[in-house]
Amino acid sequence: MADGSTPRRTRPSKAERREEILAAATRVFGSKGYHAGSLVDVAEQVGITHAGVLHHFGSKDKLLWAVLEYRDRVDVEHLEGQHIPGGLDLFRHLMTTARINADRRGIVQAYSVLTGESVTDGHPAAAWVTERFTVLRGEIATALLQVALERGVALEEARARSAASAVIGVMDGLQVQWLLDPDAVDLAQETAFAIEAILAAVLAGPAAPRVVPAG
Amino acid sequence: MADGSTPRRTRPSKAERREEILAAATRVFGSKGYHAGSLVDVAEQVGITHAGVLHHFGSKDKLLWAVLEYRDRVDVEHLEGQHIPGGLDLFRHLMTTARINADRRGIVQAYSVLTGESVTDGHPAAAWVTERFTVLRGEIATALLQVALERGVALEEARARSAASAVIGVMDGLQVQWLLDPDAVDLAQETAFAIEAILAAVLAGPAAPRVVPAG
Repeated sequence: MADGSTPRRTRPSKAERREEILAAATRVFGSKGYHAGSLVDVAEQVGITHAGVLHHFGSKDKLLWAVLEYRDRVDVEHLEGQHIPGGLDLFRHLMTTARINADRRGIVQAYSVLTGESVTDGHPAAAWVTERFTVLRGEIATALLQVALERGVALEEARARSAASAVIGVMDGLQVQWLLDPDAVDLAQETAFAIEAILAAVLAGPAAPRVVPAG
Repeated sequence: MADGSTPRRTRPSKAERREEILAAATRVFGSKGYHAGSLVDVAEQVGITHAGVLHHFGSKDKLLWAVLEYRDRVDVEHLEGQHIPGGLDLFRHLMTTARINADRRGIVQAYSVLTGESVTDGHPAAAWVTERFTVLRGEIATALLQVALERGVALEEARARSAASAVIGVMDGLQVQWLLDPDAVDLAQETAFAIEAILAAVLAGPAAPRVVPAG
């Protein structure tokens, strides 16, 4: 409210209402998926009408985009300056993210469901997820090349990109296993193990012996 | 047909019809997801009625289970004896699977969608996917412990299980990235890189230095 005088509980501001709808949509898409989750479900959780949700977001697709952007924002909010660091700090950030994610099941569930659903034909999240992977692969590959350079290790860009894809892949794949069976998978520990393994492989250089002989 | 005399194309046997329905259901669930894909879509692809599909599989849930089992069968059909090997051969098998998967987008898509959807509340595939992960984690951990033993490397069971979760996670996560952007991700190469990295980390032993300092 412009004059700051309206009590929060009685009449949320437009921004507060948007945040409420985003949090509700994250829960609904996470628990049902995008296709099966409806705007009516979202509206009911917030205590407004279906038309009220459309008033704030325009369409179900636009609400989905907003949920995905909301997730990205939450992902960096523990970082100073809220931007993703480079070099070795990037990998420390990814490990921290996994540790934080273990305490926010809802947002991990929404991300996992939407990412999985996005590979269906014509899914409205496909472009966002694809772009997110492209950007993240680039950032991780750049950080790997930087670490390798600092340590004087030869690293081809193709190998840095393989490693970057693997880092993203293992983080996403572990989330699904953890959501299904949190007692069997320690999200933070398994993620840290895998990122360490990938970093060590990259820094071992191209001449490191292979464990599995080609066959 | 019991007497083998009926021409195949005119009237498929019950087993052939089941296979046709399974292949169609794999395509439909892969392209639309389980919730959005309908039995009518499946029936249309095979050229039979909705009731015809139910006659063979009983319900949409039961068809889903059959699709998931079908995928498992396809997964091992290139193996001698069709059972999963142990020790280092298991990892060679996983690398081969990734190479074969790069040529069967449909089945990878169905698996990725159903796995992603399975984390939604009360999803009928959740039990199957959870059980599959449990069994696979056990098999991979056992193979890792065997390889470590053969090489005289100390390996704690907890670390073997972290590594097993990471192997499954990276394979699943890379499939999603590859489905969305096949030009940016080389499924076979990235999978082989990641499995090698995880194996090397396990065989480096517990005293190997960490790349990312705790912080």
